Amino acid sequence: MQQRELNYLFLKRIGINTHQEPVVYMRQDCHVCRSEGFNAHSRVRVTTNKRSIIATVHQVTDGWLSHQEAGLSDAAWRLLEAEDGEVAYFSHTKAVDSMSHVRGKLYGASLTQESADEVVKDVAGGLYSDVQLAAFVTACAGSRLNQDEVAALTSAMVKVGQRIDWGTSPIMDKHCVGGLPGNRTTPIVVAIVTACGLRMPKTSSRAITSPAGTADTMETMAPVNLTLAQMKKVVEQEGGCIAWGGSVSLSPADDVLIRIERALDLDSEGQLVASVISKKVAAGSTHVLIDIPIGMTAKVRSPEYAERLASHMRYTGVKLGIQVEAMFTDGAQPVGRGIGPALEARDILAVLRNQAEAPADLRVRALTLAGRLLEIGGVASHGAGVARARETLESGAALHKFMAICEAQGGFREPALAPHCYEATADRVGVVSFVNNRFVAKLAKLAGAPSNSSAGVDFHVKLGQKVRVGEPLFSIYAEAPGELAYALDFLRDHPNEIRIEEESL
Amino acid sequence: MQQRELNYLFLKRIGINTHQEPVVYMRQDCHVCRSEGFNAHSRVRVTTNKRSIIATVHQVTDGWLSHQEAGLSDAAWRLLEAEDGEVAYFSHTKAVDSMSHVRGKLYGASLTQESADEVVKDVAGGLYSDVQLAAFVTACAGSRLNQDEVAALTSAMVKVGQRIDWGTSPIMDKHCVGGLPGNRTTPIVVAIVTACGLRMPKTSSRAITSPAGTADTMETMAPVNLTLAQMKKVVEQEGGCIAWGGSVSLSPADDVLIRIERALDLDSEGQLVASVISKKVAAGSTHVLIDIPIGMTAKVRSPEYAERLASHMRYTGVKLGIQVEAMFTDGAQPVGRGIGPALEARDILAVLRNQAEAPADLRVRALTLAGRLLEIGGVASHGAGVARARETLESGAALHKFMAICEAQGGFREPALAPHCYEATADRVGVVSFVNNRFVAKLAKLAGAPSNSSAGVDFHVKLGQKVRVGEPLFSIYAEAPGELAYALDFLRDHPNEIRIEEESL
Repeated sequence: MQQRELNYLFLKRIGINTHQEPVVYMRQDCHVCRSEGFNAHSRVRVTTNKRSIIATVHQVTDGWLSHQEAGLSDAAWRLLEAEDGEVAYFSHTKAVDSMSHVRGKLYGASLTQESADEVVKDVAGGLYSDVQLAAFVTACAGSRLNQDEVAALTSAMVKVGQRIDWGTSPIMDKHCVGGLPGNRTTPIVVAIVTACGLRMPKTSSRAITSPAGTADTMETMAPVNLTLAQMKKVVEQEGGCIAWGGSVSLSPADDVLIRIERALDLDSEGQLVASVISKKVAAGSTHVLIDIPIGMTAKVRSPEYAERLASHMRYTGVKLGIQVEAMFTDGAQPVGRGIGPALEARDILAVLRNQAEAPADLRVRALTLAGRLLEIGGVASHGAGVARARETLESGAALHKFMAICEAQGGFREPALAPHCYEATADRVGVVSFVNNRFVAKLAKLAGAPSNSSAGVDFHVKLGQKVRVGEPLFSIYAEAPGELAYALDFLRDHPNEIRIEEESL
Repeated sequence: MQQRELNYLFLKRIGINTHQEPVVYMRQDCHVCRSEGFNAHSRVRVTTNKRSIIATVHQVTDGWLSHQEAGLSDAAWRLLEAEDGEVAYFSHTKAVDSMSHVRGKLYGASLTQESADEVVKDVAGGLYSDVQLAAFVTACAGSRLNQDEVAALTSAMVKVGQRIDWGTSPIMDKHCVGGLPGNRTTPIVVAIVTACGLRMPKTSSRAITSPAGTADTMETMAPVNLTLAQMKKVVEQEGGCIAWGGSVSLSPADDVLIRIERALDLDSEGQLVASVISKKVAAGSTHVLIDIPIGMTAKVRSPEYAERLASHMRYTGVKLGIQVEAMFTDGAQPVGRGIGPALEARDILAVLRNQAEAPADLRVRALTLAGRLLEIGGVASHGAGVARARETLESGAALHKFMAICEAQGGFREPALAPHCYEATADRVGVVSFVNNRFVAKLAKLAGAPSNSSAGVDFHVKLGQKVRVGEPLFSIYAEAPGELAYALDFLRDHPNEIRIEEESL
């Protein structure tokens, strides 16, 4: 028993955010590192009375941690649900057996349903290190998964998460691949589709790297942190909801893989398809419309790639028992005016309220998507969907339904704009010839979006529009003078990201 | 200038060993993170008056670091050559352009010489994160590199490091792929080959995960930390040396990639070949003999794989202008008796001194390799090499040369065994039927090897040998009672890793 006793240390929260990777900090010369031979970068199992996780060791070479303590990063602390001074047991991790399937794929074997199941289970269980995750993502990258492998991966991803059963069919859903800035059609589409009697319980994400996710935007108008029971009640009553998906664990392996794909900037057809379809199947959707914007600065740059994605998605849908249809849209420039939760919400409400200043592009996109969903769902005949959607919007029925959904989710509130505003104006006469979307997104984030929901950037011009000297180009909204200053510093340092050119004769 | 001034913080060493990955610790709410939008896991450039590195951000969410400070991990501190309180400037890193070649390889393009050069330069420069390194390693894994891609990768690896020019030819060298425990032939081979008049300046590595590297073993008999100038002087005088390669930067990209390959447990023919051949070319060798042990528990498990490796190595050698030959040897069980620097040195000296108790297997292997090198180097005719090698060993000429090399490197010393010893004995009569090599290596490391050079495990029996009750199986040597206790705890917990079975009738 002597060795067992040696392997205990007292847990201490040390306040280091390592993103999603759980890290444990141990004295290089503590008895556990000595006896077990742990090094910096060893993967170890940490077990308390309540829970057990795998973490990466970083070794403390200084006196700020005692030999009887183990520090935990914020992620490790959260996963372990640890308490200060709690005792934990440290042991070696077994090798991750399912990595043999990743190696097999690299050496030429196919990803079978069984091997996909084992890999995805271990990924969702946190057994893969970042380096191992990168190997799996890379092994599947490009076009290396055939359609059956994609379907196997998708099915495996569904199995490791929760799956919602709405007890009825059809359940309508939509998804946009590689969201264009401001392309916030979802609340409008849900309002129209449910107003026409179809069921559309929409679970959306919060922003990860962008200035706003659909859940962030919706939250400026109504509560979105609903439990599954609350969501079901809202849907029972109103036919639809627009809630944050995070309270339900839909396709948790996907969240892990997406972080690595983003770090590698790798496009993987197979994983993109598995990501989208697994979340839809897990959410209980039966009829899904995929919006694929095509454009030089969009995620999908060519009609050929869009067609390949659409074909994979349809096939995978069939394999998993749902109907998937793709719609190709214009991805050349941002949609609407506002960038940031409240600013986008304002655009959405302007469309729903049929206001004259409502952004026409946002309105047309929402009607197109909603129209096709009405046709797929069988409440409009082929070709008559858009007219039915427009009618529903213009009659005020969509607004009425949206307000009812907001009330059911906890009450509607008017989104507020931030008090501190800076208006950038044209310094010459000409035509808007270039807008760097990444720059605009960064500006909105520096101003405080999405954590400050009323902050962001409001665009007053579109590409190709003529402007005069002194005419407003865009406004920056911030909740505090400090944040406005950050954004203005950045603006001053990057003077050429929005360009105006003299009109050619 | 306001923003520039905002991006300065004072450096602080905080004593965290993150292995090779440079990490910078910054307050989540400090002005630099706020204004630049750095998150946990952002890659940032840290620049002082002296140096500039890329590091990964971990964010401090607690009060132990001030808003004006940035903490550095040990690796970051070392790379920056930082001083406490020094000022550093923090900025965004540019995207690593050469990752586009990694993506290209994944999407079906070949690795050209130009793209290999760019990738390897950035890898050696520390621009790749661990996740990006894993993607590159995976993209090249299995048999995904053809022989021209392997040659391109090898050439790129040579270019980013130093390259030694000995000013003469031939320069003999040897290498063992996937070292068998105790297979420490190098000092014997160098002694024989140089005693016969050939040049053999051997640079060896220290242990990374094993209980001893050749440099660790040699260091128990003579100094090995030689500068390039010192090595050249020794070689000038004696025709050869056995020195630590770490003071010369040979193929630095390889060191980075090997760490990731090890974490992934990925076999990559291409990278194995590039690793071995690039180091030999950089070391200035012209004629290289590769020892490839084949066995179920060795790195190379089949003659087919061994032949493929050998073929790649020969081709790459030709492309890079050196002659490479492979020799397949038996990799079924460990070689010699001692495991640990001093214990292995004792075996080597026993062979060189022609002592009766010298391990026969180590002696035969060394003679075989040395004999072939004598033939390749042209000082023995084909088929006569081993006899010439044996003659050189038995006459005492090899011992004489070895002692001369030791003196030239700074003086010979007799390796000492550790004072604390535990002898494990057979608890039954029978035949040794199984030895878990990983277990034995772990035991030697817990006893203190390689940092305590006189510690380790001494094996008294071989597979298939008959033993009586109470007969010694192996001894554990440690420098302190505490370390012996760690090893004994581990031994007690793993009773079945060395097995004795009754003889079948």
